[in-house]
Amino acid sequence: MSPNDIRPASGKLGVLTPGMGAVATTFYAGVIAARTGVALPIGSLTQLGHIRLGKRTEDNNPLISELVSLASLDDLVFGGWDPISDNAYEAAKRAGVLTPAHLEAVADELKKIEPMPAVFSHEWVKLLEGVDNVKTGSSTMDLAEQVIADIERFRTEGGCDRVVMVWCGSTEAYHAACEIHDSLEAFEQALRASDPRIAPSQVYAYAALKTGTPYANGAPNVSADFPAALELAAQMGVPIAGKDFKTGQTLVKTILAPGFKARLLGVSGWFSTNILGNRDGEVLDDPESFRAKEITKAGVLDQILQPKLYPQLYGEMYHKIRINYYPPRGDNKEGWDNIDIFGWMGYPMQIKVDFLAKDSILAAPIVLDLALFLDLASRAGKHGIQEWLSFYFKSPQAAPELYPENDLFIQLTKLKNTLRHWAGEELITHLGTEYYQE
Amino acid sequence: MSPNDIRPASGKLGVLTPGMGAVATTFYAGVIAARTGVALPIGSLTQLGHIRLGKRTEDNNPLISELVSLASLDDLVFGGWDPISDNAYEAAKRAGVLTPAHLEAVADELKKIEPMPAVFSHEWVKLLEGVDNVKTGSSTMDLAEQVIADIERFRTEGGCDRVVMVWCGSTEAYHAACEIHDSLEAFEQALRASDPRIAPSQVYAYAALKTGTPYANGAPNVSADFPAALELAAQMGVPIAGKDFKTGQTLVKTILAPGFKARLLGVSGWFSTNILGNRDGEVLDDPESFRAKEITKAGVLDQILQPKLYPQLYGEMYHKIRINYYPPRGDNKEGWDNIDIFGWMGYPMQIKVDFLAKDSILAAPIVLDLALFLDLASRAGKHGIQEWLSFYFKSPQAAPELYPENDLFIQLTKLKNTLRHWAGEELITHLGTEYYQE
Amino acid sequence: MSPNDIRPASGKLGVLTPGMGAVATTFYAGVIAARTGVALPIGSLTQLGHIRLGKRTEDNNPLISELVSLASLDDLVFGGWDPISDNAYEAAKRAGVLTPAHLEAVADELKKIEPMPAVFSHEWVKLLEGVDNVKTGSSTMDLAEQVIADIERFRTEGGCDRVVMVWCGSTEAYHAACEIHDSLEAFEQALRASDPRIAPSQVYAYAALKTGTPYANGAPNVSADFPAALELAAQMGVPIAGKDFKTGQTLVKTILAPGFKARLLGVSGWFSTNILGNRDGEVLDDPESFRAKEITKAGVLDQILQPKLYPQLYGEMYHKIRINYYPPRGDNKEGWDNIDIFGWMGYPMQIKVDFLAKDSILAAPIVLDLALFLDLASRAGKHGIQEWLSFYFKSPQAAPELYPENDLFIQLTKLKNTLRHWAGEELITHLGTEYYQE
Amino acid sequence: MSPNDIRPASGKLGVLTPGMGAVATTFYAGVIAARTGVALPIGSLTQLGHIRLGKRTEDNNPLISELVSLASLDDLVFGGWDPISDNAYEAAKRAGVLTPAHLEAVADELKKIEPMPAVFSHEWVKLLEGVDNVKTGSSTMDLAEQVIADIERFRTEGGCDRVVMVWCGSTEAYHAACEIHDSLEAFEQALRASDPRIAPSQVYAYAALKTGTPYANGAPNVSADFPAALELAAQMGVPIAGKDFKTGQTLVKTILAPGFKARLLGVSGWFSTNILGNRDGEVLDDPESFRAKEITKAGVLDQILQPKLYPQLYGEMYHKIRINYYPPRGDNKEGWDNIDIFGWMGYPMQIKVDFLAKDSILAAPIVLDLALFLDLASRAGKHGIQEWLSFYFKSPQAAPELYPENDLFIQLTKLKNTLRHWAGEELITHLGTEYYQE
Repeated sequence: MSPNDIRPASGKLGVLTPGMGAVATTFYAGVIAARTGVALPIGSLTQLGHIRLGKRTEDNNPLISELVSLASLDDLVFGGWDPISDNAYEAAKRAGVLTPAHLEAVADELKKIEPMPAVFSHEWVKLLEGVDNVKTGSSTMDLAEQVIADIERFRTEGGCDRVVMVWCGSTEAYHAACEIHDSLEAFEQALRASDPRIAPSQVYAYAALKTGTPYANGAPNVSADFPAALELAAQMGVPIAGKDFKTGQTLVKTILAPGFKARLLGVSGWFSTNILGNRDGEVLDDPESFRAKEITKAGVLDQILQPKLYPQLYGEMYHKIRINYYPPRGDNKEGWDNIDIFGWMGYPMQIKVDFLAKDSILAAPIVLDLALFLDLASRAGKHGIQEWLSFYFKSPQAAPELYPENDLFIQLTKLKNTLRHWAGEELITHLGTEYYQE
Repeated sequence: MSPNDIRPASGKLGVLTPGMGAVATTFYAGVIAARTGVALPIGSLTQLGHIRLGKRTEDNNPLISELVSLASLDDLVFGGWDPISDNAYEAAKRAGVLTPAHLEAVADELKKIEPMPAVFSHEWVKLLEGVDNVKTGSSTMDLAEQVIADIERFRTEGGCDRVVMVWCGSTEAYHAACEIHDSLEAFEQALRASDPRIAPSQVYAYAALKTGTPYANGAPNVSADFPAALELAAQMGVPIAGKDFKTGQTLVKTILAPGFKARLLGVSGWFSTNILGNRDGEVLDDPESFRAKEITKAGVLDQILQPKLYPQLYGEMYHKIRINYYPPRGDNKEGWDNIDIFGWMGYPMQIKVDFLAKDSILAAPIVLDLALFLDLASRAGKHGIQEWLSFYFKSPQAAPELYPENDLFIQLTKLKNTLRHWAGEELITHLGTEYYQE
Repeated sequence: MSPNDIRPASGKLGVLTPGMGAVATTFYAGVIAARTGVALPIGSLTQLGHIRLGKRTEDNNPLISELVSLASLDDLVFGGWDPISDNAYEAAKRAGVLTPAHLEAVADELKKIEPMPAVFSHEWVKLLEGVDNVKTGSSTMDLAEQVIADIERFRTEGGCDRVVMVWCGSTEAYHAACEIHDSLEAFEQALRASDPRIAPSQVYAYAALKTGTPYANGAPNVSADFPAALELAAQMGVPIAGKDFKTGQTLVKTILAPGFKARLLGVSGWFSTNILGNRDGEVLDDPESFRAKEITKAGVLDQILQPKLYPQLYGEMYHKIRINYYPPRGDNKEGWDNIDIFGWMGYPMQIKVDFLAKDSILAAPIVLDLALFLDLASRAGKHGIQEWLSFYFKSPQAAPELYPENDLFIQLTKLKNTLRHWAGEELITHLGTEYYQE
Repeated sequence: MSPNDIRPASGKLGVLTPGMGAVATTFYAGVIAARTGVALPIGSLTQLGHIRLGKRTEDNNPLISELVSLASLDDLVFGGWDPISDNAYEAAKRAGVLTPAHLEAVADELKKIEPMPAVFSHEWVKLLEGVDNVKTGSSTMDLAEQVIADIERFRTEGGCDRVVMVWCGSTEAYHAACEIHDSLEAFEQALRASDPRIAPSQVYAYAALKTGTPYANGAPNVSADFPAALELAAQMGVPIAGKDFKTGQTLVKTILAPGFKARLLGVSGWFSTNILGNRDGEVLDDPESFRAKEITKAGVLDQILQPKLYPQLYGEMYHKIRINYYPPRGDNKEGWDNIDIFGWMGYPMQIKVDFLAKDSILAAPIVLDLALFLDLASRAGKHGIQEWLSFYFKSPQAAPELYPENDLFIQLTKLKNTLRHWAGEELITHLGTEYYQE
């Protein structure tokens, strides 16, 4: 490929978030604050990331945004849906993530972002309270068409050249995909029939794809990762990515596990417990929502550690994950891991990690990067699953014939080599034979 | 390159360790135990490591030892020097690393390994007690020649086809290289003059290189990383690697720091403290020995985090390392890290890591891998600094014009791509464009 | 009182344990090892504890066993019941608490301790496997009479002057006491009717009390803390104590909470999680058994912190306890606590405690002390609830009109002042006015 | 004693603090905020503490301030000295302890508190920067007389009925008391001779005692604990207390150690490390100041654990304390403890405690309580060392013939029984024999 194959990022880019809670409002606030220099968009590769080109000795490390054309923060326009009618300022205040000083600095702009009525059902998210802003319609297809209309209205009113959608809403109850998800035809039929097996998040994903809007899924929901959605994405030429933002404990896990694996240290047990007190914690106190989360969290180690290839090291590993709703902390999630490892001759050792994290602070830059990178992919003519964005997800979506890659460092190599490839630069292999004497 | 360019690993391989304390005896014991199946050589890439070839979907992951020809554990012959005259069994018992059951299972073979008298001086290692097995000579060059004679006798008596040397001794007081280290001629002159600025470990390295014996340096000593040593290595065609085995806290650091960096999370402070009660801890209670250790430990973060490229994220980082001698624990080192990070808009978060490690258990497989990989390099006709072995070191030796690479994952990629390259296989870039729809 | 009111501890003392798992066998093994000096009975006040008498300046600190007459370790005789037919040696080996060296040193004596068939029902302990040694009978009263016969046979065959019973078995499913527990008459009627609401542990307690055997309850079971049991204890003049040995996390909690309370630091949240892999953990994986445990654990903080007296400090405290079965660790229980406290002007602080404990090692000295102290109480003519032994329990039994005392330090003061009182010594108040100038 | 022996707390009470840094300004701010209900004086026994009177069943728990007559917060008047000329508002702002909201709520009153010029010397406090407000004089006695004049002026201008002084300044370099401290005559002679062995804090203590002002010492300085000071206190009838406020890690230590001791768990090692970034940390980076701190911290365990009485449990304990200046945290001190304990038969266990503390938040209520309790003692006609206030100190001052008591729970018993005694109430022994059946 060459840079000329990518359409430039001119004009405004609309970013729509289903869900306007802690994550989405922290994202809006941070972008607005960054425009005026009030705060830095730390954690965002599209804003701060450099990328090495050529040999180490060349010392050539441009910004990623200098290598490929990305939408500017000044060109972003925000919108969203939420089942609670608070505007973004009120929602941010209630979330308690930002300091009063930060909140006030962006108050005027946040107040203008009013949530559109949401597609929502307590069947899918049990423990959410205060719901007062929900769409009604004659059928689920009718709801989808309302969302499609919302998107088009937002595009026009915001003067957007392009729009992307990033799911920032709650975790839905877990239900595996079934026959209604097997083909686009079956799925549209089910939409018309208001089949109760269609999750609200699937309605948003459908509307996005139908309107050519790139879609990223920040929750563990089965939202765009089933055959019908892939069929529609291919038909419309839309890039997608998912699922479940990789923050907190799973982020740490996909940093540490590749480390143990690199050194071939065995793992006999991994116990992870979380305490969190925000809306997310409240929702996950429902066992069905927790189930969805647990599935995306649990698979991570197996893929990284390859117990089939290394039965002596990882074949007997006991992996347990607990999430505990603990109100005293609010958004200040804490994750405690105990890892029982063993080394040379089988001798046991232990590692304990305590992560005093801020959930939304870790998620917000991911929303930004996914919005800008999906837009880039779209302008580059890519569609379907963008596996190079696995870096951002707990449970990366991959082509059906592939295992997903969870190792953070392989994910980063994939992301950066993809950008180098799109920009027509040489890939990096770290071989460096030129520095050896032979 | 092609596999045919590598001479096969036939015949016996002698492994000589200056230092026969906890690390070396744990290494011997584990290899002997592995031969008979008493215990597994966990942590060793040469023994248990697989390497992926081709595409993910091909599922082709041979053992590293199937890809390249490595000496077999059955062909290893052990020898060493130590300033304390205990044989390997007595030394292992005193070190207290292994269980009585393991010790007894390998007792007969360990008892046969008697230390040759060491080149040693309390000027360089202050706090070691019980020293009773030290060479004397008319000059430092005389001592070097005695070591050379030791190597040749060991080679002959052990029936070795090839010999390698891995430094497993104590940390010496820190003294930077000076003019006597600038050229081989100056260095040999200084040896003859018994210049007090020559460290004992430099005598071993000199003897190794002079006899064509590949040399790896497991301590932070300035031992083979100065111009005279490089000159001699080039002259004799010997591969070398160093320095300071990457175990414990620095291992964790080079796992975590690349993770924070990958996500562009800022770091405002990193406080690392260690408690350890073995001979290593005793030696490091001397500020001069600690100084040497501190230097190899401190540089790690700077190189990984690139504060010059990322001044807003890492420019103000406060990095503090403390090592504390704490006898109650013996070899069971504990490392506690507190890391102050910050994310989106500058919000602070904290990570604490407590590593209940076993020093020698982590070091032993490194000794084995370095012995086998240096021997491989030698048979492949490589000489000088083997940068692809950076993976094993706290302070990797690199070509003068290069910065050393400390990121464990880049180090692993470099190691594996080097092996693929030597075996004539395609390098892995994780690009995987073939799985995208365009 | 005066020391003369206490009958001396002459002759043998039989110690019967319902349950011969990790706790009981560790207790037996330690006592046997202590007799021969192989190991010290650390953690036992009756063996190692001193007690201050008189003023600080008098420096008069005899052993507790010098102040009051206690049975000697040499005079103890062991017996027990268990639903699994392993002898004490086999059970100890399976429990994996003791080193091979310790096990072998006491093997001969442990092998002689064979479990009598147990009163047992899977209705009360679901997740126990390998059950093969269970009594059958025509009614629950018949089972009780079999236990009574067991006690008498043990007394005669062991040549015991006195016998005590300490429950060391599993945690039973939680069922509150009901009308059948309200009077001795109703309870004996229910025994004859084989009422399913009678727990196996209640059968043991009944048999103990009926035979004048002091009874201590090491589990959270409702075993001797209901009106019928108290009535029988009064009738027979038997001292009792309970319930649930205070080890691990609750021990730490009753150390720390009095500390926060002393300084009037507020507590907004206390999150406690446990990982354990022994039989105890397995049993507690059943929610009904966990329920019983949770009740004894949860009450502790409320009593110590007195939220009614201090609503601003402790009125809003969120207390959450999790127990997780985690096999990799066996008996090596780990408890992690996070405590959110607040101080001056409401500023928040946090304390995290990680306790790498050994369950049976903490419990064994409690079994010994309870056996010897209950025997002392019996010889001193005390009967009913021995509140001065609250020190040893998670959920201390107290007179109906009293709240139980959970503060470890008040418990210790109570225990020691009781001993002083029984020995006719002055109580200690720490007033010390004699050292002031007025 | 009876309550009538205590003069009532009428009129204003002046509180003078040598040192107007983080601790003193947090104390002022919290008292001012408490007056108006803006914040609660949490951590203060004089404000929030209840005290049990009579039997448990009587449920009689008045406030301490209802039992004995204490000065009201509304009657406190603040003053202080500091070598830096910032007023209390500026100093509080620089200290960074309080939120902007709290600071502004008390700004007006804080701004009025201007520091009087301090007695100060860099010989005693090396690493303090920005010093601009220091007394000069013809001799050290002249400086003392200036301080005496300051006290009298403050008393008159503030309309104070009584005045107390609480040292809130920095830790001075450690120098043991010597012959000039042996008698009042020698000390006054040394003051006149400007003997360099007189510490600035001794000048303050002298001025306090000379003016009949009760004096409490919040730092480890040798300030009022030498014969000359005791002689003067006796002569003037002034109560004193010291030394070094018990906050943070030592507080935790004197909570935990009594717990291990209560259960007779052995301790083989105790490693304590601290990271802190405030002025206190900066000062303690000077080894001489650290030495003073280390002495007060180290003695704590020995006294509590009584190794002479329990040589098998505590005779071999290895105790190590490290304090590390770590700027990223400011006043948010973090203390990490690792404690190696052992139980039954010698089996090892470990406890780790991580305390995320706020130094000044923990110290401020101690300043308040000491001020009010010393004033109480004075009105009760007590003078000399107030050992019942040991509760508040790392290194409690005690009568020469006594060991200091460090166990927090014995200290609390002593404090409360002293108050009961002064109020003519019965002492509490926790015996409770009335609840037993005999």
